[in-house]
Amino acid sequence: MRANRLREIWAAGGAAVNGWLTIPHAFAAETMAHQGWDSLTVDIQHGVVDYQAAVNMMIAVSTTDTVPVVRVPWLEPGILMKALDGGAYGIICPMVNSGADAERLVKLTHYPPLGTRSFGPIRGLLYGGPDYPEKANDTVVVFAMIETREGLDNLEDILRVPGLDAVYIGPSDLSLALGCKPTFDEVDKPAAEAIDYILAKAKEHGKVAGIHNGTPEFARKRIEKGFQFVTIASDARLMAAGARQVLQTVRA
Amino acid sequence: MRANRLREIWAAGGAAVNGWLTIPHAFAAETMAHQGWDSLTVDIQHGVVDYQAAVNMMIAVSTTDTVPVVRVPWLEPGILMKALDGGAYGIICPMVNSGADAERLVKLTHYPPLGTRSFGPIRGLLYGGPDYPEKANDTVVVFAMIETREGLDNLEDILRVPGLDAVYIGPSDLSLALGCKPTFDEVDKPAAEAIDYILAKAKEHGKVAGIHNGTPEFARKRIEKGFQFVTIASDARLMAAGARQVLQTVRA
Amino acid sequence: MRANRLREIWAAGGAAVNGWLTIPHAFAAETMAHQGWDSLTVDIQHGVVDYQAAVNMMIAVSTTDTVPVVRVPWLEPGILMKALDGGAYGIICPMVNSGADAERLVKLTHYPPLGTRSFGPIRGLLYGGPDYPEKANDTVVVFAMIETREGLDNLEDILRVPGLDAVYIGPSDLSLALGCKPTFDEVDKPAAEAIDYILAKAKEHGKVAGIHNGTPEFARKRIEKGFQFVTIASDARLMAAGARQVLQTVRA
Amino acid sequence: MRANRLREIWAAGGAAVNGWLTIPHAFAAETMAHQGWDSLTVDIQHGVVDYQAAVNMMIAVSTTDTVPVVRVPWLEPGILMKALDGGAYGIICPMVNSGADAERLVKLTHYPPLGTRSFGPIRGLLYGGPDYPEKANDTVVVFAMIETREGLDNLEDILRVPGLDAVYIGPSDLSLALGCKPTFDEVDKPAAEAIDYILAKAKEHGKVAGIHNGTPEFARKRIEKGFQFVTIASDARLMAAGARQVLQTVRA
Amino acid sequence: MRANRLREIWAAGGAAVNGWLTIPHAFAAETMAHQGWDSLTVDIQHGVVDYQAAVNMMIAVSTTDTVPVVRVPWLEPGILMKALDGGAYGIICPMVNSGADAERLVKLTHYPPLGTRSFGPIRGLLYGGPDYPEKANDTVVVFAMIETREGLDNLEDILRVPGLDAVYIGPSDLSLALGCKPTFDEVDKPAAEAIDYILAKAKEHGKVAGIHNGTPEFARKRIEKGFQFVTIASDARLMAAGARQVLQTVRA
Amino acid sequence: MRANRLREIWAAGGAAVNGWLTIPHAFAAETMAHQGWDSLTVDIQHGVVDYQAAVNMMIAVSTTDTVPVVRVPWLEPGILMKALDGGAYGIICPMVNSGADAERLVKLTHYPPLGTRSFGPIRGLLYGGPDYPEKANDTVVVFAMIETREGLDNLEDILRVPGLDAVYIGPSDLSLALGCKPTFDEVDKPAAEAIDYILAKAKEHGKVAGIHNGTPEFARKRIEKGFQFVTIASDARLMAAGARQVLQTVRA
Ligand SMILES: [Mg+2]
Ligand SMILES: [Mg+2]
Ligand SMILES: [Mg+2]
Ligand SMILES: [Mg+2]
Ligand SMILES: [Mg+2]
Ligand SMILES: [Mg+2]
Repeated sequence: MRANRLREIWAAGGAAVNGWLTIPHAFAAETMAHQGWDSLTVDIQHGVVDYQAAVNMMIAVSTTDTVPVVRVPWLEPGILMKALDGGAYGIICPMVNSGADAERLVKLTHYPPLGTRSFGPIRGLLYGGPDYPEKANDTVVVFAMIETREGLDNLEDILRVPGLDAVYIGPSDLSLALGCKPTFDEVDKPAAEAIDYILAKAKEHGKVAGIHNGTPEFARKRIEKGFQFVTIASDARLMAAGARQVLQTVRA
Repeated sequence: MRANRLREIWAAGGAAVNGWLTIPHAFAAETMAHQGWDSLTVDIQHGVVDYQAAVNMMIAVSTTDTVPVVRVPWLEPGILMKALDGGAYGIICPMVNSGADAERLVKLTHYPPLGTRSFGPIRGLLYGGPDYPEKANDTVVVFAMIETREGLDNLEDILRVPGLDAVYIGPSDLSLALGCKPTFDEVDKPAAEAIDYILAKAKEHGKVAGIHNGTPEFARKRIEKGFQFVTIASDARLMAAGARQVLQTVRA
Repeated sequence: MRANRLREIWAAGGAAVNGWLTIPHAFAAETMAHQGWDSLTVDIQHGVVDYQAAVNMMIAVSTTDTVPVVRVPWLEPGILMKALDGGAYGIICPMVNSGADAERLVKLTHYPPLGTRSFGPIRGLLYGGPDYPEKANDTVVVFAMIETREGLDNLEDILRVPGLDAVYIGPSDLSLALGCKPTFDEVDKPAAEAIDYILAKAKEHGKVAGIHNGTPEFARKRIEKGFQFVTIASDARLMAAGARQVLQTVRA
Repeated sequence: MRANRLREIWAAGGAAVNGWLTIPHAFAAETMAHQGWDSLTVDIQHGVVDYQAAVNMMIAVSTTDTVPVVRVPWLEPGILMKALDGGAYGIICPMVNSGADAERLVKLTHYPPLGTRSFGPIRGLLYGGPDYPEKANDTVVVFAMIETREGLDNLEDILRVPGLDAVYIGPSDLSLALGCKPTFDEVDKPAAEAIDYILAKAKEHGKVAGIHNGTPEFARKRIEKGFQFVTIASDARLMAAGARQVLQTVRA
Repeated sequence: MRANRLREIWAAGGAAVNGWLTIPHAFAAETMAHQGWDSLTVDIQHGVVDYQAAVNMMIAVSTTDTVPVVRVPWLEPGILMKALDGGAYGIICPMVNSGADAERLVKLTHYPPLGTRSFGPIRGLLYGGPDYPEKANDTVVVFAMIETREGLDNLEDILRVPGLDAVYIGPSDLSLALGCKPTFDEVDKPAAEAIDYILAKAKEHGKVAGIHNGTPEFARKRIEKGFQFVTIASDARLMAAGARQVLQTVRA
Repeated sequence: MRANRLREIWAAGGAAVNGWLTIPHAFAAETMAHQGWDSLTVDIQHGVVDYQAAVNMMIAVSTTDTVPVVRVPWLEPGILMKALDGGAYGIICPMVNSGADAERLVKLTHYPPLGTRSFGPIRGLLYGGPDYPEKANDTVVVFAMIETREGLDNLEDILRVPGLDAVYIGPSDLSLALGCKPTFDEVDKPAAEAIDYILAKAKEHGKVAGIHNGTPEFARKRIEKGFQFVTIASDARLMAAGARQVLQTVRA
């Protein structure tokens, strides 16, 4: 089975730089994939993307060495398994709020005996190779998003779940949940403390910690702090920011 | 009929700043449209876009005041008329090489008695309004691209064609045609002279001159020189450039 | 943030006339949007529509002042939040059967502290404006469908839920649930009484009442009775009815 | 090979009632197909439709006995042959202006020895049956649109072309070409006379005459005059007209 | 209402041969439908297919007498009802693990009073006919997949549920669940015994038994054993197997 | 620039085995690409495929080492250049009937000074690499189809055109043109002689000869004769043939 570059980077103690895909078209995804991201996440949750577009986008990412990851809209069996069958090498699941949530997530994303994932890895076989069935459980990575007060309260229960590879912090949702302003980087103090706490606990439990960032500068700082999976920007945001800058310059 | 902002800008002696759409999805187009471009051109020629996507993109642009323009792949009746029926308020036609080409372009894009455009402005009526049939001939703008040696040689024949509103320079193709390196801004001397010549002649004949640019800085210079329609960048290029910059910063 | 015309109409004591979209294409939606509906509901439940089409349809509706509403297929977190992120200014949720259902609906459709909606209003920001995050909770409207016996029995529990703006009656389902023939207008007596009861109770609790109708004549009567949101026909039904009438006339 | 109902109707001296498809989706086409039209024309010329959508629409029409017809955007080899390969049982070609145009049209739409249509009837075989290759030349019907002054002037040259089955009048374009107001039914006198002339000449040459109508009442009159193929309305127009009527009634 | 050929075959004591659709396009589905399958199942679970594609595929299947069936991704109300509204005449639901699951499945797929399916059979009416509402409950067939240890343990509870028409065995998942190698035909002994047991119990309870097969030879054997619904291969597998064989031969 | 494997195979004196794509979806194309074809041709001429689908299919092919080729529907500038910009490494153009046709084909597919291809290789840059502009002329291969009597008569004029890399024989069209039955392999004698003649002349002029085949056995024979590019079957035919075989076996 094709190795998962995310696992290789992490095994070497490094941090993966992850891009974000919200435009539901293969060409946009392929363009992003050619820029050198370690992984690209198709965001079915907040992106304007559904499953059929996500498959085309994963195909596009598969023209390069960038690892295809999917953020599902919810901890729901149908979409979790469809994302995996579609060839995702990583799953980010939003709003994992308890140990039970995390257990359910692990169960749905792994084949027996570890889990109850249903068998039929149609595009996984194309992307991963013929030994996908035997090796998928140990190759694909699964992230639980910690972004609610409940999730924070139950963090250790979540981190104790075997088969969960990583946690991923959504600073906006976490901030909102803690009564702070929703932002990615310069979050309010309670959110900042929660982020530090999650990072520390993840390390303690031997899990990778990932986080969403607004700027590359902030992502670097977080890598230095110990985050091993940092997301920056998104296809649409990069395009919009570039457009605004162009218009400002030409009209200055 | 809804007025054409391009005509208004030009009538006031101003220059329109035009963006470029090559990603075949409405959401990408809508995101671009919200950044403040005067017009956005759906590039069916070199973009990864065909007619069906172009219609969705024009719908997306129509959520804002930005003027929807289409670059057709070729001086071909079917696509020229379909682009107009789809609601394009501007048409950019590549490789117009002679007065006869320009006449054909004008004929195909205007209703009788000026031209032979076939009647059936299905989305034009939605976007333009119920008096579209009477006013389309005077509202829509038509650009002939001057980008070959033949086009350069026949420039005045082209500029003399009544009903043609503007010329549009493709610096890459023009450069290639003149044996120069293909680029948008710092073109080789023969190309630079040809550009100046086209601009001067267009003004002489009372036509608007437009041009493709690589950077906003260069677009400004060209506006100062007298160009009244300047294109900068494209959705995919802005996204890719932004991504490269982010990756460079985070990995620096 | 762009105001919600539904709220404006209701604040003025008026009734909104709502159309229904079941054909999964932007052009059909745009054509409907240009006819003057106060709002148009993209029906992801019984329409032949899924999320990706729904986004294109909302973009098409956004070319006009008509308010985009979505009926979700079920009280499921993923699709509720995706519909909102896609720019819906109203949500109609089928088969809300209890106070708990209604509370869940309100929670999932509002940001903290009122609810737990996850943050990432990607197209909401384009359609609503940059202050969408602060104002969405007070701008978007949420309808609970009352259309089962259980929903009828628990009506007051449902109406007591803060943050729920309106109830919406599906006369067919309600009729079926009460053992009556499934129809929109001339419903059997038990269904008719249930409809009157729901309307009265909604008013008592200060909620807007909406209902699906088969004919404009019936919709008018219901407006006179106090309904402030009336749906009539659908894109496909209007088309089919028109076609049958044409064929009858030409073959008469 | 599946028989062509249009030929059967004509052979029996009857007139076919044709509907018009401009919404690029299979479900809209299927809904129309279930209303009882003799044939339905996918309008790739003025509809918001391209080839890929047209195929899905023809598939949808093929769920019923209604005959699938395609209006191509232009007398262009690629799209003419693709429409036929996609299973069209009728082709309407716009702006056939001379005998040479008509000959080219016949050549491109028939296999050798009559024409030069390229072999590869991929969906034609599914829809028509395994003997499609031998029988297509005698089954498919081809219409030349007469809608320009040139076409009118060369009418008899066009009608003399063997293999052309029918002419089809576009009253709007014909009116515009003759300096009249563009409309379908109550055309100005010069257009009315031209229509009568075309009908008479078509009959004289043993060709079927078809025409676009605005209302079923007018279509009936034209059937009585001798037209054997009458188009009325379109999917989008029926929908829009129905919507306007509903809104008028409910707001009256 | 159009009769369900599956019920007719079963009533006659026969076995239906079912094909499998995983390529999300109408043309692939139409091509398969023309080969003579009794039914074709659109696999929204493990196929690369979502709802919007599934509708187009069902339309394509509806051009023939082959019965359109849908396998949903999960026992989730939204997709179950959307599949039925889209015209499915059969539903296969994965991982039905208990009597409660089976009851929920039956409830969601039948109109009152038997169930709580919401009313709005938009494409069901086109495909089935105007009496669909009255007859759907007795026409559509519902399969519960038995493919987990839990499902096996609760088999009789599942089979006792009124309104459930059939069980369907997924040999791969069942094998995995029992600690056997995942395969379709030559399953390990525990899985083979489980399959025999399910077949025997289904017959005892008067339910149809169906099963997924890898080869036609094995499917025949299973028909002889008493299975009345056998699936063989899939569109993509047939294509891939054919391609490998061609390449082997040409390069031999 | 990524090398063109077709050129490498030919340079080594070998023959490339080419597959054929007619199903307009990326997943079908990706499945085919994983079976080991040297190249895969997206058939925009007789496949049910248009440009937008072709791009997605080329992206899918680009996940493997298989070379993406496009057969255009006609010798038309727009689609020829769009196919190349979309990343095609080979172009097959139907019905090249004269030296002038071949010259036009070469001109449109090569940048100046060799040709007049317009500059804007949007996806070519992603697939080929940043030096695509300089190297495309020498990397991409262009096939002229010889399949009419005229093409046969003018064969040497065609073969003399510099920049044309290969000829490709369509045995069906060629057979029809010569009054023979349309088939791929066991063609009638006049067609067989024409095929031998084309092969001999191509070799004489140093051009590669390619041909469409019905069976792998025949393709092998033709490789032995000297053909260096052999196409066998297509996605849809392989699927259909496999399905028929399965049904025959299970029902035997
Ligand atoms: Mg979040
Ligand atoms: Mg150019
Ligand atoms: Mg309902
Ligand atoms: Mg016309
Ligand atoms: Mg299974
Ligand atoms: Mg051919």
